[in-house]
Amino acid sequence: MKKKILKYQEILNKEIDKINFYKKPENLYKPIKYILSLKSKRVRPTLSILSYKLFKNDLDNILIPSISLELFHNFTLIHDDIMDNADLRRGKKTVHKKWNKNIGILSGDILMIYAYSLLEGLEAKIYGKILKRFNEISIMVCEGQQFDMDYEEKALISEEEYLEMIKLKTAVLIGFSLELGGMVADVDKNTTNKLYSIGEMLGIGFQLMDDYLDVFGSPGFGKKIGGDIIANKKTYLMINLLKKSDEKDIKIIEGLKNSNNDKEKIKLISELMIKYGINILAKKTIGDYFKTALNELEEIKSESDYKVILSEYFNEMMVRIN
Amino acid sequence: MKKKILKYQEILNKEIDKINFYKKPENLYKPIKYILSLKSKRVRPTLSILSYKLFKNDLDNILIPSISLELFHNFTLIHDDIMDNADLRRGKKTVHKKWNKNIGILSGDILMIYAYSLLEGLEAKIYGKILKRFNEISIMVCEGQQFDMDYEEKALISEEEYLEMIKLKTAVLIGFSLELGGMVADVDKNTTNKLYSIGEMLGIGFQLMDDYLDVFGSPGFGKKIGGDIIANKKTYLMINLLKKSDEKDIKIIEGLKNSNNDKEKIKLISELMIKYGINILAKKTIGDYFKTALNELEEIKSESDYKVILSEYFNEMMVRIN
Repeated sequence: MKKKILKYQEILNKEIDKINFYKKPENLYKPIKYILSLKSKRVRPTLSILSYKLFKNDLDNILIPSISLELFHNFTLIHDDIMDNADLRRGKKTVHKKWNKNIGILSGDILMIYAYSLLEGLEAKIYGKILKRFNEISIMVCEGQQFDMDYEEKALISEEEYLEMIKLKTAVLIGFSLELGGMVADVDKNTTNKLYSIGEMLGIGFQLMDDYLDVFGSPGFGKKIGGDIIANKKTYLMINLLKKSDEKDIKIIEGLKNSNNDKEKIKLISELMIKYGINILAKKTIGDYFKTALNELEEIKSESDYKVILSEYFNEMMVRIN
Repeated sequence: MKKKILKYQEILNKEIDKINFYKKPENLYKPIKYILSLKSKRVRPTLSILSYKLFKNDLDNILIPSISLELFHNFTLIHDDIMDNADLRRGKKTVHKKWNKNIGILSGDILMIYAYSLLEGLEAKIYGKILKRFNEISIMVCEGQQFDMDYEEKALISEEEYLEMIKLKTAVLIGFSLELGGMVADVDKNTTNKLYSIGEMLGIGFQLMDDYLDVFGSPGFGKKIGGDIIANKKTYLMINLLKKSDEKDIKIIEGLKNSNNDKEKIKLISELMIKYGINILAKKTIGDYFKTALNELEEIKSESDYKVILSEYFNEMMVRIN
């Protein structure tokens, strides 16, 4: 499985490299080449390809459309990094830090348009419905980002609100990645709906795992442990911690918000999470989303080996939790 | 003619009002409703409608696609205003000043996606080629904005560079407005090309007129006289003034760059422009673009009254120069 995935990543990288971004104005196109050259697993196009392969043998028809999702995703990264005032992306300077905010805004804009333009080669028969779905998904992604920003200002958000937000911000595009594979393979609506749903579950699980690993991951994964805690982020873990804590502990948590002692803050909060079983709860929830995705994948009618490859790929996406 | 145009503006405003932006998150959709509610002549969709009417009698098929251009245009306004750090748009607060920059970025993004989604209703037969063209045009508009920003940092730009920049930033979308009318009416490629070209000429003329009116317009038009001069903008007039001035006058112009006496600066620069005949040159150039557009319009094969209406509308767009 791993070999196949790596092969697709290589093909995707080569194809992305071929897109004609070697143009003027350089201040517009260089940032695009830069962000697309950062180390990435190309999760979304890979999912599209694997999903397509459930039904078809070729690669040609899905390759370019799948890259459209990668471009769209990178457009959101550039703009989100501006909004979050982030310094680093994939261990390197963010676009607006390497250049400036204006260049970040505009190169993000044009990257989104290029995402649309990569769909131009689709057959007329499926082009209209794929575009319609792409528009719907893109709108939801933007809504998710706005909810995320809104929630930063809010003292309390519910678990429901949080799950809806990460669904919009992250999971719908993962869902569409699988759905796109089915749509380009021109399978029935029932199946493409199911593919979307599988991806949505996977995407929510994936984002919750990100929350989990921020606190309970091993430092080897490249993510700075405790970053969400330092930033007082209202993650799935924090929302549930606040829900379960007694008054005394809530006071401790509130008191730590303005603490400058990062190390102590991380230690105390994560100890409280363990005290209230938030780590176990989170792992269970993540596992549930993941299992639902795998079960639904089982129901997809396909005789291809790619059903196994896809489930292994899901496992790999999730395996970082021990 | 005026009555007809006003009627279309009213229909357009009503239709724009019907788009479902009454949703959550409010911080995303309120800014969109806000910018779309600002007083606007709806030039782009009006051009599309008039162009379509050269060939067809109905309004239904062109109405929604034409509004796509208005949404796209407003997306560029929101983002450009952030990049230019502008306080006012159409006499009211810009989106990022009324809300904030992050909200400006994101509501601009989603407005662009809505522009795409308004094209969904097009017949499959023409959808693909219109989308392709829309992508090309959108890319050019972003390139134009980047050139504009780049040129701000450059000491000198040539007339050629300037004309290419305003073509990309402004004229290609005016060109596409007319082209879209022809494409939706499904007329031959030769005719849609010509429609594009007419709009491009008109758009360049329109932008040059903007430069002209900044210095030589009467204050009644709502634009602050001399704004470009105060901001040291390298407009068509300034580029030509620098080209024609003798050494002594160039020194005066350079010296005025850092002047805080706006009134004197405007007076001296505009006197120099008159001394070197830049006002006459600009009027001639604008007239030439305008006449080319009108002559090309003459060549369009159409028996409809709308040919006269369209040329009158062009005249109205230009008539502000006496």
